[in-house]
Amino acid sequence: MEPKRDGVYLHLDPWREALDKLLCNIDGRYRGERSPTEDMGETVPTRKAVGRVLDRPAFALISSPHYNAAAMDGIAVVAEDTYTASETNPVILRARAANRGAATELDGGHAGERTSISSIRGTCVWVDTGDPIPPGYDAVIMTEDVNPLGKGRIASGNEPGISEAPDDGEGAAEAVEIIRPAHPWQHVRLIGEDIVEQEMILPEGHVILPTDVAALLAAGLTEVHVRRKPVVHIIPTGTELAPPGVALAPGEIPEFNSSVLSALVEEWGGVPTTNEALPDDFDAISAAVRGALDNGADIVVVNAGSSAGREDFTPRVIQSVGRLLVRGAAIRPGKPVLLGVSRDGRPVLGLPGYPVSMVLTADLFLKPIIYGFLGRPVPERPRLRAYLTTRIVSSLGIEEFIRMRVGKVGERYVATPLGRGAGVTTGLLKSDGVTVIGALVEGFEEGREVEVQMWRPPEEVEKNAVIIGSHDLSLDVLHDILRRSRDPMGISSAHVGSTGGITAVSKGYAHAAGVHLLDETSGVYNIPYVKRYMPQKKAVLFRLAGRVQGIMVPRGNPKRIEGIADLARPDVTIVNRQRGAGTRILLDYYLKRLGIPPDVVKGYGREEHTHMAVAAAVKGGSADAGLGILAAARALGLDFIPLTVEAYDLLIPEEFFDKPPMSRVVEAALSPEFKKAVERLGGYDLSETGKVERV
Amino acid sequence: MEPKRDGVYLHLDPWREALDKLLCNIDGRYRGERSPTEDMGETVPTRKAVGRVLDRPAFALISSPHYNAAAMDGIAVVAEDTYTASETNPVILRARAANRGAATELDGGHAGERTSISSIRGTCVWVDTGDPIPPGYDAVIMTEDVNPLGKGRIASGNEPGISEAPDDGEGAAEAVEIIRPAHPWQHVRLIGEDIVEQEMILPEGHVILPTDVAALLAAGLTEVHVRRKPVVHIIPTGTELAPPGVALAPGEIPEFNSSVLSALVEEWGGVPTTNEALPDDFDAISAAVRGALDNGADIVVVNAGSSAGREDFTPRVIQSVGRLLVRGAAIRPGKPVLLGVSRDGRPVLGLPGYPVSMVLTADLFLKPIIYGFLGRPVPERPRLRAYLTTRIVSSLGIEEFIRMRVGKVGERYVATPLGRGAGVTTGLLKSDGVTVIGALVEGFEEGREVEVQMWRPPEEVEKNAVIIGSHDLSLDVLHDILRRSRDPMGISSAHVGSTGGITAVSKGYAHAAGVHLLDETSGVYNIPYVKRYMPQKKAVLFRLAGRVQGIMVPRGNPKRIEGIADLARPDVTIVNRQRGAGTRILLDYYLKRLGIPPDVVKGYGREEHTHMAVAAAVKGGSADAGLGILAAARALGLDFIPLTVEAYDLLIPEEFFDKPPMSRVVEAALSPEFKKAVERLGGYDLSETGKVERV
Repeated sequence: MEPKRDGVYLHLDPWREALDKLLCNIDGRYRGERSPTEDMGETVPTRKAVGRVLDRPAFALISSPHYNAAAMDGIAVVAEDTYTASETNPVILRARAANRGAATELDGGHAGERTSISSIRGTCVWVDTGDPIPPGYDAVIMTEDVNPLGKGRIASGNEPGISEAPDDGEGAAEAVEIIRPAHPWQHVRLIGEDIVEQEMILPEGHVILPTDVAALLAAGLTEVHVRRKPVVHIIPTGTELAPPGVALAPGEIPEFNSSVLSALVEEWGGVPTTNEALPDDFDAISAAVRGALDNGADIVVVNAGSSAGREDFTPRVIQSVGRLLVRGAAIRPGKPVLLGVSRDGRPVLGLPGYPVSMVLTADLFLKPIIYGFLGRPVPERPRLRAYLTTRIVSSLGIEEFIRMRVGKVGERYVATPLGRGAGVTTGLLKSDGVTVIGALVEGFEEGREVEVQMWRPPEEVEKNAVIIGSHDLSLDVLHDILRRSRDPMGISSAHVGSTGGITAVSKGYAHAAGVHLLDETSGVYNIPYVKRYMPQKKAVLFRLAGRVQGIMVPRGNPKRIEGIADLARPDVTIVNRQRGAGTRILLDYYLKRLGIPPDVVKGYGREEHTHMAVAAAVKGGSADAGLGILAAARALGLDFIPLTVEAYDLLIPEEFFDKPPMSRVVEAALSPEFKKAVERLGGYDLSETGKVERV
Repeated sequence: MEPKRDGVYLHLDPWREALDKLLCNIDGRYRGERSPTEDMGETVPTRKAVGRVLDRPAFALISSPHYNAAAMDGIAVVAEDTYTASETNPVILRARAANRGAATELDGGHAGERTSISSIRGTCVWVDTGDPIPPGYDAVIMTEDVNPLGKGRIASGNEPGISEAPDDGEGAAEAVEIIRPAHPWQHVRLIGEDIVEQEMILPEGHVILPTDVAALLAAGLTEVHVRRKPVVHIIPTGTELAPPGVALAPGEIPEFNSSVLSALVEEWGGVPTTNEALPDDFDAISAAVRGALDNGADIVVVNAGSSAGREDFTPRVIQSVGRLLVRGAAIRPGKPVLLGVSRDGRPVLGLPGYPVSMVLTADLFLKPIIYGFLGRPVPERPRLRAYLTTRIVSSLGIEEFIRMRVGKVGERYVATPLGRGAGVTTGLLKSDGVTVIGALVEGFEEGREVEVQMWRPPEEVEKNAVIIGSHDLSLDVLHDILRRSRDPMGISSAHVGSTGGITAVSKGYAHAAGVHLLDETSGVYNIPYVKRYMPQKKAVLFRLAGRVQGIMVPRGNPKRIEGIADLARPDVTIVNRQRGAGTRILLDYYLKRLGIPPDVVKGYGREEHTHMAVAAAVKGGSADAGLGILAAARALGLDFIPLTVEAYDLLIPEEFFDKPPMSRVVEAALSPEFKKAVERLGGYDLSETGKVERV
């Protein structure tokens, strides 16, 4: 199971093999020579046992009901007494309300009286649902079929004037009339009808649901024996780590991986414990691992330090407490994952440090171990087949996990891959699922159907509006408004620039595209482009906002940039938007007008995909200027030189315009809430919002 | 919204209307004039916020990364220095390991030296992933592409003998050689690449997932504002209630509804608090409701006392603290449910007492209120379409919720309704989902496709073996073995007797049937019946067990029953099995042989559907005797008069015999584990287990 040599990453098969062996060992500790003293299970009160896994079958201690019980509110009768009852020939029974416990005595008393009153056929006892059937009685007639007579109507000579006596309770008449016979045991729940003593209520391995609690408690089981939750000790390592919330120096990053991992461990059924963050120090880390094992941790996870970097000690740490089983996996992200065991067979894992890699490798390798401890199969994720909106390139020899954003456009699901590099922390959050590309596949073409393992439920994703094209902050505002509504939905957006958006819409990959394309000849926004690139489809251009475009520069404008011409100065480096982006076309338009060839502009070739990314580059000092919208500049405290107001439209095919999800997007765009929130951002002109142009 | 008159139960529409209004009111308290002092939300630490609902959008406080960071282990370089690098013409850079924080000074030092060593083109700084890029540098070259030269190879005249100096760290060579140019910002994660300060990370109404914690903490949000969980105060009422676990008198039932309801409230996102169980006393119950409202409960639930029984106070209790909105719903089970509001608009519900009714009405009426408080839509249950294995009869004017057991036989799902009366506590546990029959429908025929709302995941149900027919305890043993296996599956069984089983198998509604049918002419079990009733299908009769059949009588045999003839005595009442059951055919066979007409046997017409139910009837005293198997008698401590050993076979169509799930059932039946467990039950002869007869 040892890798051939360092740096040769292994395919997933050895991993699966090593995990299987490990799980068999863990399982053996449960199943082999199980003894009650082995602390693999524990006893918990049934009322606290929801979500726990039964360690042995649950057998009923008592029957339910444990007595013959009335199944209806009404009267308990002797069925035989009622056989002659009919509408024309009713049967009269002498009645008493039964006080629980007193029923027997009352009945004894009545039994003696039964024949003493001539017209009365027998006795009955008022019972509520759940009351015991008094001995000697064998059926219940429901209240609706009982006609209380009151005391006065009983034809008994020796009890005159009783009718004045106060009634001793609602419906507790002295005599009743019935017009239909009862059959034996009608409306009676017999002993054990529901649960029979000794019967198996739930099998071993069952995960206890809220509704199971009823059956267990009804069966007299106030406690149950369940699988103990494995304790997973998490050790965050890295000299660069700082506690979240403190001011950070360059090179310091907030330590949040342990919080994420804790939450995942809890979700999967383990008990997380977290070590303080340790510096990259072999002795400190291996002491912590040893300490965790001494304190009874079932699983130890070191995060990170599992790759080949200078300060990556985890492989050596694992070897110091036991054996390294697998080093590295041929997957991306997540390559440098480690699996080892302590000398007494407890799993010790090394997970990579990038949050997305950590989550994916924890899902692949830690989750099955926790489920193994609990004796449960790993639950499958829902899968769906979706059409790729853009091609994906993958490396041979590596199993690649591509995060996808998914939506449903018309009758088909569409999936857009998220950028691989981007989204180190937010990548999982922004994606709806993942597509696995096998080690022998070089990628998939646009339009191909791929399988997506969903981490959001498909029903949730189906409601989303898929808007692919140019990005604007007002889309985030719409998203927020729609999320807050009584029937929440979202906007699943991918940022591919305005022209990319038109292509996506024309191919049916999106409900709409955000576009702001200046036609250099006519000076008109959007319409000429849509007519040119999507001649075959009837569509609507819906004006979402007018946006002030301009040049973003650092606060104080240190390079004294006053207009487009300054961007060509040798001491100025810009950051540009990607090919096809409306903002890039705007820059090209201005450069052309001024006769400046693009290649004299330093940084013209550096492409970012959003306004905020351009603003961040300027803020971070890697560029002196970049074109973008006022809102982005304002969000990061940059100075701004306005150039023009451009039309930011949603291009919506006719077929989607007045149906959800787009009708709801349009509705949200016309709400006062949208107006208020966008005006607060600044840099927008909303006077034409809602203007509709059919193309 | 008041019902027309008592006892006229309303359809669900008024309920939905009342619920909608109530939810709008609750929502208004959030959305209308929200003020920070209104305690509808609360601040919690982000690391503890998983599963909570964001009360407002989360905006980033800091960018991530908050500095330009190395995206790879390697060296930070000035891209311009590397432009001429090629395999034939490598570029040599003078290198230093950067100690975090010291990088700047080192670099300052080197910058001065840059030209002093002739063959060296520039400087570089060793960086690990995540390290800050030192000022002046603008790209990273990954370790794999760096060739460390060691100090000896640098052609600098004034530093002889340095090669002996100890290396100050893995890979920290004094000089490196590179053969490929770097482009600016390659392998650098720029400020804000992932999260930009001020950016919206998550929208209002979002349910926080483990992976969201990474993004929130990376964005500097160590706490988040979430919806407060509504406090649901549960008041169990009923003079008959006893704490679970104590010895019970007749008429007492263990109080478990509050435990079930607590677990459900928690699952739905509320905080349950539980009142002590109260007797049926108006003053006590209304004092408890008032107390709960005074203590700040958001929702109060009284359970039960909501029907028209003599001691049902809940409607009056609700009127005493506010207003009754809806009384009763036209549904079964669950009719007597109540919805009211306190004077200040807080929901007060009355739920019925039967556990199944309580769970269904809580699901219909309490769950949407809790989700309303949390501002979330009620999640939908998975639905599937399944063929009915038997007909269902339903009443007009009532929306009926039929609990279903579901399996997949061949390519189609099949659903078998559970008995309606039975399973008051275990009915939900034993069912896989529910089918709703509208108020205007009188039922569905066998073979019709119906929709089932699943409460178990369809994937789980799909693995099950569907075995419809005669019941035997050994099926429970098989179920338990299969549940415990590494890939757990179950047996979904419905008890319709042997002949019902053959019909189900022949119609393709089941993978197998449990049969034990004695042919009165030939004295042979099963084979003649299968040939007669299923001539068209090739099948296998798999011998599961030989069973000792006999007469079950109370311990001590008070009526001195010695054989079948005694069952015809006038002082003996029996309990029988349903038509088509093998045990009933056995009784008929003996009665015929003895020349006893069935109608002289008292109780012949009373039908139970399982051996255990018959045993329970005898144990409970409602019958003096009943035919059944030894194991059932032994389980309840009854005496047993053996009659014969019969063959209990599984009838399995050829097409299912050697494929899962049936191959796994057969395998489990052949395991030593099965043998041991069944022998422990007693009354079985396993010498022919595994015998296969093709028919």
